[in-house]
Amino acid sequence: MSDGRLSINQETVKQWSLPELAEGCAKAGIDKVGLWRAPVQEYGVERTARLLSDHGLSVTSLCRGGFLTALDPAERARALDDNRAAIEEAAGVATDTLVLVSGGLPEGSKDLYGARERIADALAELAPYAAERGVRLAIEPLHPMFASDRCVVSTLSQALDLAERFPAEQVGVVVDTYHLWWDDRAPAQIARAGATGRVHSFQLADWITPLPAGVLLGRGQLGDGSVDFRALRTAVEATGFDGPIEVEIFNEALWARDGAEVVAEVAARYAEHAC
Amino acid sequence: MSDGRLSINQETVKQWSLPELAEGCAKAGIDKVGLWRAPVQEYGVERTARLLSDHGLSVTSLCRGGFLTALDPAERARALDDNRAAIEEAAGVATDTLVLVSGGLPEGSKDLYGARERIADALAELAPYAAERGVRLAIEPLHPMFASDRCVVSTLSQALDLAERFPAEQVGVVVDTYHLWWDDRAPAQIARAGATGRVHSFQLADWITPLPAGVLLGRGQLGDGSVDFRALRTAVEATGFDGPIEVEIFNEALWARDGAEVVAEVAARYAEHAC
Repeated sequence: MSDGRLSINQETVKQWSLPELAEGCAKAGIDKVGLWRAPVQEYGVERTARLLSDHGLSVTSLCRGGFLTALDPAERARALDDNRAAIEEAAGVATDTLVLVSGGLPEGSKDLYGARERIADALAELAPYAAERGVRLAIEPLHPMFASDRCVVSTLSQALDLAERFPAEQVGVVVDTYHLWWDDRAPAQIARAGATGRVHSFQLADWITPLPAGVLLGRGQLGDGSVDFRALRTAVEATGFDGPIEVEIFNEALWARDGAEVVAEVAARYAEHAC
Repeated sequence: MSDGRLSINQETVKQWSLPELAEGCAKAGIDKVGLWRAPVQEYGVERTARLLSDHGLSVTSLCRGGFLTALDPAERARALDDNRAAIEEAAGVATDTLVLVSGGLPEGSKDLYGARERIADALAELAPYAAERGVRLAIEPLHPMFASDRCVVSTLSQALDLAERFPAEQVGVVVDTYHLWWDDRAPAQIARAGATGRVHSFQLADWITPLPAGVLLGRGQLGDGSVDFRALRTAVEATGFDGPIEVEIFNEALWARDGAEVVAEVAARYAEHAC
């Protein structure tokens, strides 16, 4: 069934505490997890690292740095400080990949181009800092429906335009099926990312409708929606990518269920639709 | 204030009947409207044409044909019949432009490419039929958040890939700021559309968040959101486009207000943000 590549992002089973996640994944025969900063900070960075290591789990990514589009200098300085802290947390939990959600438009601004340039400026400060700590920055293009309020980087093409200004071992991209499935240019842009070794993370979630209010928690269990996972995985692996494949689903219906049941379902759906 | 280009799409003031629309626009000094099929069918096609003509109003577009992605032959035949009826209704209300919302993925399908090819096949049948009646088909790319359930044509680039298989006087595109504002390729694709005379309709609505459940009714009044109207209008007019500019906002808060007040506000916002 399993190909040993599956990683469970902790937001998929948000109902679980970190100890429950560690124990639950280990029991389910899963040896990789993706983490989020808030629960890691709450549990403690070192304590998290020890807990996961004790359960034989490795960490495929930490979410998230980013929000680098502020115009206000003080706000911008705070964002950079916060990203340096995120880089240290990533190193602390022994992952090589910090996912960046780049940030939306500042209040009142309509300048998407300017916002993307400010991201590039911030990456110039953060990428060497991360590299010194063994951490790569992975720019995640978010679905265009998040362009104004979360992430002005909406396509893999835009993410690569930013990433390629830096060495590949410092800045790459996240290929997340939920954000990219609709884009006819995605296969070509995945090839472009792979050609320079910039696929730093590969994440799966399905696209389902109707979208809920606010749209953030509308992701679907694998197989419930419109995403052709096998086609996208084929495109990613054609580049030589053989890293972890992380399932990250934000969905309140999954959070209301038993975590072990959700993880078992994710593993089964992964085998059915993505292998 | 006004530049004589503004057209009010009737969905912007859905609270108005057709006679109220005709009278209200005439009173507000607006001489162009965009129409939708359901209210026109209900009022009667000929009767609508007479009503608008009596008030000195011309019709800039009829919404909407499309939904051309069905796999089932009977469903497909029904869609083609319905589109021929829409073309006749467009001719009947004396507009030269029928807007097409192309359709989403059929139940269970994940094949976006195949769906787009079926749209091309349908256009080959419908475009000459429309041309004989003096009607152009205008493919509207819808925001990628509608790709699965409403329209597999998500970018101006994809719309032009379809339209360019046909003569420009038969098949063109709709440039709608709501759907395209986030796309860094939009200006270049607007130029591409203009170069072959394929900007058949130019529509305005603003992008606001949070999106409501179902996302369809989340459009914003001009100036309330993130869209840089002046930049997009400049790109459209750089192609030589000097046609009507239609404001089409689906928003329950606008529908709850007095129609005359909404139209006055639209005209003022248009002058402030889009002229």
